[in-house]
Amino acid sequence: MAVLQPLLDLVQLCYEHGVRQAIISPGSRSAALTLAFARHAGIQCTVVMDERSAGFISLGMAQQLQHPVVLVCTSGSAAYNYAPAVTEAFFQHVPLLILTADRPPEWIHQHDGQTIYQSGIFGKHVKESVTLPADYTVEDSRWFINRVVNEALLLTRSAPFGPVHINVPIREPFYPTEDEKAVASPEIRKIERTPTFAQMDRTIWHSILDEWEDSPRILIAVGQMAPDLELNQSLQKITQEFGIPVLGDVISNLSPHEQSIARQDLFLTNDPPKELVPDLLITLGQSFISKNLKLFLRRNPPKQHWHISEDSHIIDTFQTLTKHIPMNPQKFFSQVFEEIDYKRFVQHGENEQEEQFLEAWLSEDRRVRRKMNDYLGNLTLLNEFIAVRFILSNLPQKSILHLGNSMSVRYANFLGIDNEGVEVYCNRGTSGIDGCVSTAIGAAFMTGLPVYLIVGDVSFFYDRNGLMLQTLPDNLRIIVLNNSGGSIFRMIDGPAKQPELETFFETKHSYTAQRTAEDSGLDYLHVDEWTALPKIWETFRSGTKIALLEIKTEAEENVRVMKELKNMVKKN
Amino acid sequence: MAVLQPLLDLVQLCYEHGVRQAIISPGSRSAALTLAFARHAGIQCTVVMDERSAGFISLGMAQQLQHPVVLVCTSGSAAYNYAPAVTEAFFQHVPLLILTADRPPEWIHQHDGQTIYQSGIFGKHVKESVTLPADYTVEDSRWFINRVVNEALLLTRSAPFGPVHINVPIREPFYPTEDEKAVASPEIRKIERTPTFAQMDRTIWHSILDEWEDSPRILIAVGQMAPDLELNQSLQKITQEFGIPVLGDVISNLSPHEQSIARQDLFLTNDPPKELVPDLLITLGQSFISKNLKLFLRRNPPKQHWHISEDSHIIDTFQTLTKHIPMNPQKFFSQVFEEIDYKRFVQHGENEQEEQFLEAWLSEDRRVRRKMNDYLGNLTLLNEFIAVRFILSNLPQKSILHLGNSMSVRYANFLGIDNEGVEVYCNRGTSGIDGCVSTAIGAAFMTGLPVYLIVGDVSFFYDRNGLMLQTLPDNLRIIVLNNSGGSIFRMIDGPAKQPELETFFETKHSYTAQRTAEDSGLDYLHVDEWTALPKIWETFRSGTKIALLEIKTEAEENVRVMKELKNMVKKN
Repeated sequence: MAVLQPLLDLVQLCYEHGVRQAIISPGSRSAALTLAFARHAGIQCTVVMDERSAGFISLGMAQQLQHPVVLVCTSGSAAYNYAPAVTEAFFQHVPLLILTADRPPEWIHQHDGQTIYQSGIFGKHVKESVTLPADYTVEDSRWFINRVVNEALLLTRSAPFGPVHINVPIREPFYPTEDEKAVASPEIRKIERTPTFAQMDRTIWHSILDEWEDSPRILIAVGQMAPDLELNQSLQKITQEFGIPVLGDVISNLSPHEQSIARQDLFLTNDPPKELVPDLLITLGQSFISKNLKLFLRRNPPKQHWHISEDSHIIDTFQTLTKHIPMNPQKFFSQVFEEIDYKRFVQHGENEQEEQFLEAWLSEDRRVRRKMNDYLGNLTLLNEFIAVRFILSNLPQKSILHLGNSMSVRYANFLGIDNEGVEVYCNRGTSGIDGCVSTAIGAAFMTGLPVYLIVGDVSFFYDRNGLMLQTLPDNLRIIVLNNSGGSIFRMIDGPAKQPELETFFETKHSYTAQRTAEDSGLDYLHVDEWTALPKIWETFRSGTKIALLEIKTEAEENVRVMKELKNMVKKN
Repeated sequence: MAVLQPLLDLVQLCYEHGVRQAIISPGSRSAALTLAFARHAGIQCTVVMDERSAGFISLGMAQQLQHPVVLVCTSGSAAYNYAPAVTEAFFQHVPLLILTADRPPEWIHQHDGQTIYQSGIFGKHVKESVTLPADYTVEDSRWFINRVVNEALLLTRSAPFGPVHINVPIREPFYPTEDEKAVASPEIRKIERTPTFAQMDRTIWHSILDEWEDSPRILIAVGQMAPDLELNQSLQKITQEFGIPVLGDVISNLSPHEQSIARQDLFLTNDPPKELVPDLLITLGQSFISKNLKLFLRRNPPKQHWHISEDSHIIDTFQTLTKHIPMNPQKFFSQVFEEIDYKRFVQHGENEQEEQFLEAWLSEDRRVRRKMNDYLGNLTLLNEFIAVRFILSNLPQKSILHLGNSMSVRYANFLGIDNEGVEVYCNRGTSGIDGCVSTAIGAAFMTGLPVYLIVGDVSFFYDRNGLMLQTLPDNLRIIVLNNSGGSIFRMIDGPAKQPELETFFETKHSYTAQRTAEDSGLDYLHVDEWTALPKIWETFRSGTKIALLEIKTEAEENVRVMKELKNMVKKN
């Protein structure tokens, strides 16, 4: 048996709980973990030098897999470089298992190299953090390790999914001898958890249904969600059969159809019609991008607001919540269908109020979409709005779109995506710019579909170390919107009016992505004219390896278009 | 009075407590802080996009100033990107004041953008963390803010110096109106702290002096320390007059002189002479690089070990500590000089044991230095040992040297620096590779002296975002030791023997620093032949702007030289 046998067993337990991917950052203290993962035939390992990027690559992978990806780093500040990605995973409910090698506890704060206070280092941004014993001689220690590793793996996938941290103090010698086999103990014990789901008592169901049936104006608003075909079908049926409007941001992954509502951030600007106010608001999913939706609902609170989510934390984004229904939304809606007294519901308002309410939302969405298309269709000077519009309408039928924070995701949210097969991701758990590139790389590793990333220049350069890998995914296409700075600050009134705008907010620069792309062997393309885009796009899209398209525009022009567009859609 | 008047006052308090430098990262939530610093005539602001680099740049600045540098970031994961630098500052005792803008507490975990659990986010790696109230209407809140800001600023500079975190929730509107002046309140109250120092009672002094006088073999070992001329003079006198050996690593900043001992990491390998074991070990400073010194002392414990440090944390690196003397080391040694019964001390062993003991250490140091010079002087194939040796002996008389983790600092430690005016810095608080470039940039901003950074390729690329600044310091020269991977892993037996060496430890790559250098407008030079180095060095050294010299060597050759050198010095 190996000296560090419990660590070999830990790796085998990961495998038995379905882990198939590990991201390893180089280090000596972590060698035993690194080697155990590298030598496990069933787990694929990817080496990432910069732990900040490693964290986000694992996030992108785990988003695709909906299964925990393991992170392994050495002791010291390495673990802190994971923190931005761990925090994003926590708020976005992405399962990760973070293994941080550590010195034995007696060496903390003793002026020995790479030793910091690693226990609980991620604060409240993990579902659990546990430090393993450093000594394995006592039988109870081995039992403890087996139990907590089982528990950690189960916890990553208990609703809501999320990151779990295991801190692993390791004594020397931490390199196996040459004849030592990386074989798990035969007596390794996997603990399973039987899957269950939350259900309501009949009496409760009836009262819920009564309230539903008695609400003539119901609005369903969907926050960020991973693509879910079944749920989408239920929501679509709810609109079609009950006349209930369902709205979502671009990150809600609602399938577009005739009665989709997606441009609320445009049409809910200044003083939207009062007939849009619902009696009952039903929400699901996570964060909303649209600030105007938030303001509209906060200022015009519905009588009731139900939030359907398995997350027990009370989240009250609109300051209107009256009921938390801790169920899986798909289960909830399908049961509504089975049980609702359809006649009573549609007849309650003689079907009129529902229809009027739906039509009020739909007509606003149609109106701004038309206005926007008319306006943007006539622009000929290259700007980010028309560039992103072009890209969104030219994405392959089946593809994955990653959007950077914060202008990229905003553009896409204004424009909406009419293409049914596009899955949309964005780091909206914390809305940081720190890992947009790496997250897309992680996603591309896990899918056969083409992955497109639209990202601003600041976010791109911030996370450029994600590209420093031994192998990059050929199915990734990166579009950098380069306007020579963080032009989001030019878009919003507050900073735009300050004399410090360019220096302190935008951080004007003259970098292009070319050298970074060349360093990592990416095909590099560049466009600064609207008429050249289609042809370059075709080259970019159809290449056989990872490529980067840099779209160069003027920040001032982008601001002008944004303002004019907002003015256009105001008028009826 | 401005709506956010307490934040304007906070900035003025920083100024009154001596803050002259602030590092700002762009953000909207932090705008009020950004603008208050930007508009303060007495504080210089530097804008850094990537908060990880911002943290280390502030560390490099504060190391030079020995005064707190302020960091300002927006809400969300931005703060976590500071954590690696904050941790390094904590263990290396560098004063920083970290201001993280936040949403008001009621919006945490409510699916609103860029909102995470920021209170106490740096765990035990700050001296204090406080969250300000978000509302200023109550008078006691304004009093509270004034008090804790005073306290935080004082705390950064109380012994031991270190980082302090103030989390600043800010309500909208956070941009000043056009007519609003950035003026501090007239009634702003600065709280001062009278400087004091620790002193011992006469009785205690006498017992300390008795023990000193009764120890025939005293060894003084100095860990990492900022340059301190006065202390150096005391230590030198101690060797000269008392015959006590004083040893230090390259990061101890001991002035080189005839009786310096610096190559202990080389001569304390396998079974060093027993006559080197002290009766009384006196240590000061922080961490030691030399693993062999640690092993030697742990295996051969002195009868007594005193550690002189104002840090009250008990640090027992050698597992031999018997007495902590919580005094300023310079004060301690100068008082020893004043008070010691010189005759009794030197006569105790009839001066013989002391002299023999000093000579034993000196002769070992001389022996390995000679061996090393003989061996390295005959090498003609470019390798990192002779490259670093060349650089160290060609540094300008007055200059600052930053060393990367971990091979760069090890090379310099083996070789030693004979040039008296060179100040040496390295991030040995946590020994991370995550901020070596940025720390050197921060130092260069704060000094008129030339600053040289020697850094390996992995550390360089890890922290390359430090170079993405609007202006870079012209007095910085970066030497990248590029051996196409983290070759430290090839140097140590554990990983070197694993079949996974290249993929999982070294992370072999074919990057050069050229494009990164060009992106940031650095002069780029490159050398891969030993004979070409002197001429290229002259161009590199004498340029008028920031430059990067890439030294390309083969990892295998570096390992061969390291091994051969170690073998050479073994033999007598």
